Amino acid sequence: MTSPTPDTITVNGDRLWRSLMDLAEIGAYDDDRTGLRGVNRLALTDADAAGRRRVIGWMEEAGLTVRIDRMGNIYGRREGTDPTAAPVLTGSHIDSVATAGAFDGCLGVLGGIEVVRTLKERGISTRHPIEVGVFTEEEGVRFGTDMLGSAVAAGRLTLAYAHGLTDRDGLTLGGELVRTGFAGPARVRLDRPHAYVECHIEQGPVLAENDVPVGVVTGVQSISWQEITINGRAAHAGTTPTHLRADAALAAAQIVVHVRSMVDSGAYGDLRATVGHLTVHPDLTNIVPARAEMTVDLRNPDDAHMARAEQDLAAFLSDLESGRPGLTLTSRRMARTAHVPFDEEVQKVIAQAADDHGLSHMSLLSGAGHDAQEIAALCPTAMIFVRGEYDGISHNPREYSTPEACTYGVNVLATTLLRLAGQV
Amino acid sequence: MTSPTPDTITVNGDRLWRSLMDLAEIGAYDDDRTGLRGVNRLALTDADAAGRRRVIGWMEEAGLTVRIDRMGNIYGRREGTDPTAAPVLTGSHIDSVATAGAFDGCLGVLGGIEVVRTLKERGISTRHPIEVGVFTEEEGVRFGTDMLGSAVAAGRLTLAYAHGLTDRDGLTLGGELVRTGFAGPARVRLDRPHAYVECHIEQGPVLAENDVPVGVVTGVQSISWQEITINGRAAHAGTTPTHLRADAALAAAQIVVHVRSMVDSGAYGDLRATVGHLTVHPDLTNIVPARAEMTVDLRNPDDAHMARAEQDLAAFLSDLESGRPGLTLTSRRMARTAHVPFDEEVQKVIAQAADDHGLSHMSLLSGAGHDAQEIAALCPTAMIFVRGEYDGISHNPREYSTPEACTYGVNVLATTLLRLAGQV
Repeated sequence: MTSPTPDTITVNGDRLWRSLMDLAEIGAYDDDRTGLRGVNRLALTDADAAGRRRVIGWMEEAGLTVRIDRMGNIYGRREGTDPTAAPVLTGSHIDSVATAGAFDGCLGVLGGIEVVRTLKERGISTRHPIEVGVFTEEEGVRFGTDMLGSAVAAGRLTLAYAHGLTDRDGLTLGGELVRTGFAGPARVRLDRPHAYVECHIEQGPVLAENDVPVGVVTGVQSISWQEITINGRAAHAGTTPTHLRADAALAAAQIVVHVRSMVDSGAYGDLRATVGHLTVHPDLTNIVPARAEMTVDLRNPDDAHMARAEQDLAAFLSDLESGRPGLTLTSRRMARTAHVPFDEEVQKVIAQAADDHGLSHMSLLSGAGHDAQEIAALCPTAMIFVRGEYDGISHNPREYSTPEACTYGVNVLATTLLRLAGQV
Repeated sequence: MTSPTPDTITVNGDRLWRSLMDLAEIGAYDDDRTGLRGVNRLALTDADAAGRRRVIGWMEEAGLTVRIDRMGNIYGRREGTDPTAAPVLTGSHIDSVATAGAFDGCLGVLGGIEVVRTLKERGISTRHPIEVGVFTEEEGVRFGTDMLGSAVAAGRLTLAYAHGLTDRDGLTLGGELVRTGFAGPARVRLDRPHAYVECHIEQGPVLAENDVPVGVVTGVQSISWQEITINGRAAHAGTTPTHLRADAALAAAQIVVHVRSMVDSGAYGDLRATVGHLTVHPDLTNIVPARAEMTVDLRNPDDAHMARAEQDLAAFLSDLESGRPGLTLTSRRMARTAHVPFDEEVQKVIAQAADDHGLSHMSLLSGAGHDAQEIAALCPTAMIFVRGEYDGISHNPREYSTPEACTYGVNVLATTLLRLAGQV
C-alpha cells in the first residue's frame, strides 16, 4: 500500500470499532442457532430507542447539533464556513432485523460520526456543512415498508402513510414514535443536500471473491415485495378426500417452489426470489389449512426483467386460483422500487479516494436496498461497500467485517466527504 | 320407515340436541373465516374443564356413578343386575381442535348419556352394567399425541409418557390435569369391558353420497404423524446468491408438494397426506429462513401401502438433505397406528339394530382416528357413523349433522347397547 496523499484523512479505526461493538450490546441476544451473540433491534422498540440515545450522545460528544424530524429520523450537523452551502449528508440506519449482526447500517452511522470526530480533533473546517443521518425503519421488518424514514425524507412516501403503518401487534409507527420519544419537531422533507454518501457492508460475497477491500456502488437493483394471502377450506386430514380439498398450505408451497423455478429458469436475468415469511392457519397437524400468508421478495438489476417476473408470478397465482375450486388468492404490494443508478461523479470521487488511500476497489451493484436509493432522488448520491467475511452473510449473527475492512471503508468515506464538502 | 321392533329403544332426540347445543356454547367463539359460531375446546384448557363439569352434571342427573382416572378419563356407570358381568362401554371425547363444530366426539358422549336417560325413564334394567366414557385429549392437538386418554386406558401408552407430554407453552399434561382438577384417583388401566360401541359423526362424504343415514364402521385406517425440522442458514434476501442459499422454507415447500404428488401418483393405494402445521424462522420478508418446522399426517387403509409411503418419504427427505449443503432435516414420529379392524359380531348387532329401526345402512372404513381403535385392543368393538352435511366437513365451524341424523345414530346406539348389555 502506498502512503496516503496529503489531502486524504485517516480515522481512528480502534475508536470506530469500539463504537460498533458498544452499539451491538444494545438489543444483543444469545442466538441458539449459531451459538453467537446476535442483535435484535427492530425499529422503534425499546432496544432501538436505547441505541438511538447512545448514538445521539456520541453525536453530541463529536460536536454535532442534533435534530429529530417527525419521522424519527435523526440528523447531527457540523456547520461549514459558507452559511449558504447545502450540507454533504452521510449516514444509514441502526434498526436491525430480528437476527442481525453488528454492522448492517451501523457502520454507516458510526462511520459518519467517526469522520466528524476526526475532523474535530484535527481542527479541519469545510465549506459545506456535514450532516450524519440516522433513518427510521430501514429494514421494513417491523412495519412492512423498508427504507421508510429516508423515503419520507425524500418525499416518495407521505408522513401520514408512514405514521399509519402497523406492526403485527397492531401498534402504529406514529404511536411508537411518541412512545419512544422520537416524534421530533423538525420538518421531515429534506432540503436538497449537496451530495449523499453512505458507507455500508456489502452483504454479499463479491468483494471477498475478488480480494478487493472497497466497492464503489453503481446503484441499487429493483426490489419488489408482495404479501400473498391464500384462503382455502379447513378440513379433517383423515376423512376429507383429496379431490375435495382446498389446501391453503399446498398452494403456498407451490408458490414457493414456483418462484425458485423462475430463478433457476434464467428467463428473468439475475432474478433473486425469497419467501421469508410463511404462516398457515389453524396450523394444526390434522387439519387441512384454511389459510396461508406469505411474502415474496424479488430482486433484479434490470427493470424490464423485474416487470416480467412480477407479471408471470401474477399469472401463476391466477392459474393456481382458477385451477382449484374453493381457493382464493389475494396479493398486496408491500414495497416496490425501480433500479436506482448512482451518480457517476460521486462514484469517481469515491474511487479516487480509494486510490489515494492505496486501496484497490471495484464497481458493483447493490443487491440490497439502502437509504441511499431514496436520497438519490434529491441529490448526487453513491455508496461505499465494505467487505464481509463468510460469503458476506448478513441479517445473521455471523455477519462480520474485520476491523481493518471497516477502517478502510470509513477512511474512504472520510476523504470523500472532505473533498465533497471542500476543506478550507 | 317400518315401525321399530319390540326390543328396540328410541331416545328423546330433542333432549339429545339440546345437550349438543348446550355443550357447544362452552368454548364457543365467533369464527372470522366462516362467519359462524365455532368451538375451541382444546384438551385440559379452562373451556374443556368447564365442558367436563357440565357433562359430569348430566351424568349424575341420569343416575350414573362418576369416576375419574389418573388420565382425567371420566366414566359414568349404571349398574347391571349381574354383579359379575363386565360393563358394556360406550363414549367418545369432548376435547376439540381449535376451529371445531359441535358434533365431533360430543355426539358419542352425549348420545351415551341420552341412552342412559332413556333407560332410566323407562325403568329398563340390563344384565351388564353400562358405562359412558369421556376420554382425554383424543384430538392430540394440544399435547401432540391423539387418542391419548384411551391409549393409556387400553395399555398401549404409559401414564408416565402421557403425563410428561408438553404443549407449545411447555405446560405438561400432568400439570394441566392437576390445575383443572381432573387428576382423578381411579386406576387408569381398564378392566376388559364386555364390548365397546362408539357413535360418531362420519367426518366424510360417503354416507351423504350414498344417501344412507347410518354407517357400520369396519375399522380405522392406519395413521402416521411425523414432525420434520429443517435447519438451513439465514441470509439476506437481496445479496445472497441463489447457489449459496440453504433455504429451509424452500425445502419445506418441496416436501409439501412431494407428499401431494405421492398421493396423486396412486402408488400408495388410498393414501391421504396433509401438512397442517408449518412455521418458518425468523419469518421475515427479506431473510432466507434458517429453520422450518412442519408436520406430515399420512392415512392409509392398508398397512403395507402405509409402510411404503413412510419409507419413500424418508428417502425423499434424505435426498433433499444430501442435495443441498448446509441443510439438515430431522424427523420425529409423533403418532403411528396400524389399520384396526373392528369386531364382526358387534358390527352385526349394529346393522341389525339399524334394520330394526327401519334405517338403511352401509359398511365403511373410518378415515379418522377414534378412541374405539384403542379400546378395540381390550374387547369386541365397533362404531356407528352418523351422516354429516357439506361433504361431511369437520374440524370446522361448518361441521353439521341434522337433529334427525343424530337421533337416528343414537337410536341405533341405544338398541345396540341394550342388546349387548342384555335387557332383563
